[in-house]
Amino acid sequence: MSSSYPINSNHSPLRSNFTIGILGAGQLARMTALQAFRFGFRVASYSDRALDEPLQWMTPLGRTGSFSEVEAIIEFASHCDVLTLENEFIDSDVLHKVVRRSGKPLFPTPESFALIENKRIEKETFSSHGIPVAPFRVVSSEEEFRLFGEQHGWPFVLKSSKGGYDGYGNKVVRDVEEAIEAFATLGGSKGHEILAEAFVPFERELAVQVARNATGTVVYPCCETIQTDQICTAVLSPAPVEEQVRKEAEELARKAMEAINGIGLFAFEFFLTKDGRLLLNESAPRPHNSGHYTIEGCVTSQFENHIRAITGLPLGSTDLRCTSAVMINLLGTQNRDTVTEHALESMHEKDVHLHLYGKKTSRIGRKMGHLTVLNHDPSNSIDDVYQRAKQLADRIEI
Amino acid sequence: MSSSYPINSNHSPLRSNFTIGILGAGQLARMTALQAFRFGFRVASYSDRALDEPLQWMTPLGRTGSFSEVEAIIEFASHCDVLTLENEFIDSDVLHKVVRRSGKPLFPTPESFALIENKRIEKETFSSHGIPVAPFRVVSSEEEFRLFGEQHGWPFVLKSSKGGYDGYGNKVVRDVEEAIEAFATLGGSKGHEILAEAFVPFERELAVQVARNATGTVVYPCCETIQTDQICTAVLSPAPVEEQVRKEAEELARKAMEAINGIGLFAFEFFLTKDGRLLLNESAPRPHNSGHYTIEGCVTSQFENHIRAITGLPLGSTDLRCTSAVMINLLGTQNRDTVTEHALESMHEKDVHLHLYGKKTSRIGRKMGHLTVLNHDPSNSIDDVYQRAKQLADRIEI
Repeated sequence: MSSSYPINSNHSPLRSNFTIGILGAGQLARMTALQAFRFGFRVASYSDRALDEPLQWMTPLGRTGSFSEVEAIIEFASHCDVLTLENEFIDSDVLHKVVRRSGKPLFPTPESFALIENKRIEKETFSSHGIPVAPFRVVSSEEEFRLFGEQHGWPFVLKSSKGGYDGYGNKVVRDVEEAIEAFATLGGSKGHEILAEAFVPFERELAVQVARNATGTVVYPCCETIQTDQICTAVLSPAPVEEQVRKEAEELARKAMEAINGIGLFAFEFFLTKDGRLLLNESAPRPHNSGHYTIEGCVTSQFENHIRAITGLPLGSTDLRCTSAVMINLLGTQNRDTVTEHALESMHEKDVHLHLYGKKTSRIGRKMGHLTVLNHDPSNSIDDVYQRAKQLADRIEI
Repeated sequence: MSSSYPINSNHSPLRSNFTIGILGAGQLARMTALQAFRFGFRVASYSDRALDEPLQWMTPLGRTGSFSEVEAIIEFASHCDVLTLENEFIDSDVLHKVVRRSGKPLFPTPESFALIENKRIEKETFSSHGIPVAPFRVVSSEEEFRLFGEQHGWPFVLKSSKGGYDGYGNKVVRDVEEAIEAFATLGGSKGHEILAEAFVPFERELAVQVARNATGTVVYPCCETIQTDQICTAVLSPAPVEEQVRKEAEELARKAMEAINGIGLFAFEFFLTKDGRLLLNESAPRPHNSGHYTIEGCVTSQFENHIRAITGLPLGSTDLRCTSAVMINLLGTQNRDTVTEHALESMHEKDVHLHLYGKKTSRIGRKMGHLTVLNHDPSNSIDDVYQRAKQLADRIEI
């Protein structure tokens, strides 16, 4: 593990002025900061956006700059004791330079980050550690599209190796013509590396969060993520699949975390195929939408364990506090200055937890907040809880 | 109730830029802000201390000024949508002027605040609503000290009507000589109103938090507060007394809240006498140390219900999430720049929750953080949980 690990130094992180620098200022940064504050830490934010992002209203230590300006990030780092990030938009080369020149630890480490920022390297890494992934190949010609289609069937998926997010940078193609067009759209003609990936006719998508540092590794319960138009709309925990499948996903996630020597909180997303196989689909080197339910749903939230992990503190229990939990994303329903309407009914309900991210403007489909419903009654199926949660969330205009 | 109540306006508080202004920047302000952020609110802080108080590191909207500078507070209020406070150090006259001239709602309302800022008025108010308090009288002469002692027994307590906090402004006196001395120390010779209060040989001290606004009233479980040298050191919930006593305390607290038309979160502290009577001892018009355990221990924390109450949102369930909860205050053990040592053991334990307030320096006896232990096993007595919590907390050097 990284030698710049704070716990190995003589300084306890639990001291005045200890400052966590977050590269990013969106909702993940905001929820991470909420936990950092509970431990008495200061939080500084470096954002590539204007100063009214969610985290910017929570610290006097906010600044803006580009994610490619190494000098500016190093200057920012000089005011921090440890750095972390909330997205994958910074190049690992930049992160490497920041760590080397600032001398400040950054988690995820640039080394781990480099293994997953490029989807080809990510898949090769996981494959080589015995973690199953969907069949894939780097493609760049009509002939290769055709061959991949013949071998793995049409349709298949084209992906740029770098820069994808919430379905951006992905394209399902049904024939060679569509593949040629998608290749160009995804930047293949500009020299970006493009992967072909077999289309997996999955039954469910599952996710597992893992926190890890020198003190140990903890694994969250395997949950199900429900996507609509490639955006996560709901999370059900525990995933309504056989316990054996959940255990297997949790084991694979732990193995994946070790494969990339992850430090911090990472999330791993799996396809559960119709024939019962698990394939690792994506990984995120940071707290993840699939783990928002852990704020109330687990003894220690993903955000708390992220903060513990990057400051070298012991990790907390990931046990559920309830029989089941459902999280619904509140996506923007309007384009306007943010107003949340018809949320009062959900606030009347016991153990229904509303989170709003403080975004200045809402846009249709933008992640504006989430609602978590905890269920303590074993006679309620998780689908009952999901339906109830959806009903409450569906009323909310935002 | 106040006509400036936000819920009666056409503006939902759940909108961009809605700003909660907190007069104060200590740990109560910090924990209140943590909840405000969860609902997407902005938080501004007006503090009479330097800019490194706990809340000041959590907002770009911090300013300093005196609590008696009406103009400065009005200017601060002009940037806020609703105001609240975290202590009783501002005169109700100042609060009145701020509300009248800024047009911004403030909770607790100056009217409620005026009923409890002066201990004589507070006791008269509660008495007149049938809520029992210890016998008391305004005293100002040797003759009156003697008379009070004869009627209610020695020792008794002398208190200044205004400005007491955590035992400051109180003095137990055993005879006329001590009374004369304490009277002077407490400011009686400078014209401050001094109360004599019968010394209550209580068995336990209990506390109940109540949240109330136009949408309703919710009452937290009656807990026990344990004081050492007049500083709260621990809180046990539910209080280990007969259910009937808890119910009575909860009813009295609800009645007290109505008597002063409280809006927001208030805490009421009771003496349970050796002969089983409950006497209202103190009230606080704000989240209170006795309710810190509710962050993890209850479905809705006192801080969340405070934010809900002052923004006109519906109040959340106050049910316990566990069989019992114990909170231990982490008081400074050293005078130094803050470093928390030997806390790791408590972080290893399941459902033990560490909170540090981010104070720059620790002083012996200063409230630096707290530790909450939740117990889910009915076969553990609350004293078992208390002993375990104390053991963990006692190791911590801070």
